[in-house]
Amino acid sequence: MSSGKAIHVLRIGHRLVRDDRSTTHVCLVARAFGAKKIYIFDGDPQVKKTIEDVNKRWGGEFEVGIVDDWRQIIKDWKRRGGIIVHLTMYGLRLDDVIDDVRKSSENILLVVGAEKVPKELYIKSDFNIAVGSQPHSEVAALAVFLDRFFRGEEFKQVYNHTQYRVIPSQKGKHVEKIT
Amino acid sequence: MSSGKAIHVLRIGHRLVRDDRSTTHVCLVARAFGAKKIYIFDGDPQVKKTIEDVNKRWGGEFEVGIVDDWRQIIKDWKRRGGIIVHLTMYGLRLDDVIDDVRKSSENILLVVGAEKVPKELYIKSDFNIAVGSQPHSEVAALAVFLDRFFRGEEFKQVYNHTQYRVIPSQKGKHVEKIT
Repeated sequence: MSSGKAIHVLRIGHRLVRDDRSTTHVCLVARAFGAKKIYIFDGDPQVKKTIEDVNKRWGGEFEVGIVDDWRQIIKDWKRRGGIIVHLTMYGLRLDDVIDDVRKSSENILLVVGAEKVPKELYIKSDFNIAVGSQPHSEVAALAVFLDRFFRGEEFKQVYNHTQYRVIPSQKGKHVEKIT
Repeated sequence: MSSGKAIHVLRIGHRLVRDDRSTTHVCLVARAFGAKKIYIFDGDPQVKKTIEDVNKRWGGEFEVGIVDDWRQIIKDWKRRGGIIVHLTMYGLRLDDVIDDVRKSSENILLVVGAEKVPKELYIKSDFNIAVGSQPHSEVAALAVFLDRFFRGEEFKQVYNHTQYRVIPSQKGKHVEKIT
């Protein structure tokens, strides 16, 4: 992407079976909206396989890591000079801080929780950012943050080593099989 | 919202228990991103109660309707001069068509499916639009479409009759209780 930034995503607070599907959506959004990698804490390892299958069919090198210590991921990220951005409805308004985030660092770790996240995450984050101050969805918050951050450039990404490619169509499904 | 358009959302293709949580997220996103109402086809009626509880605590008049004939909703919408916009990864690029959608009608029915949607929906829709041509999430597609459509104005909505209001904060949670 033209900005040259590397964004990784950390998914935490995933505790319930009902969150598995949301976690899959979080991964797919991270991949489709320009993040390079996602770390999943406490999630179903099956999700990793699902995303690897998507990579195989639809290309690209998006990575999934299953982690058992999210605090360590944050610590390592900071040590390497990256910043932590936590998406939460209680944070500062996206419009008010997105330019500051852009100026802060080349490397951003975007943290998205499920319903409850530990208080220390608010403290450890360089930015707590609200994609709207109403309850909605971490899947949506992640997508809108990345869309605003990359200014729509994320949809121009090229996915290497792909088996299929969509031909945008007015009606119906047109998919090109890459030989 | 300044544009004066009324956007309603129709959620179809919901067939599995695992989709209930995605449907709740679709509803919450519709509410938080400026739609007025959602119609849910074939979903868990419990979702309606969940959203009504959110309205009670966080305000506004967002409506949820449970429907047993989605084709009728589309027919009625068209008869009243509204347009149908279906979000799908196989559709035309968002960037290429969003201005045409804006010019087309005051009233938009935004249709979001789950994994599979019937072919006829592609035919019946005035616009099939891709929020990126990669697989991701209907929750994300809905959020990004609405954010682009309302150009961020959706976050300035005022929610009447609310019990709580978030005070955007750098660290932690600040919630004002409205008396």
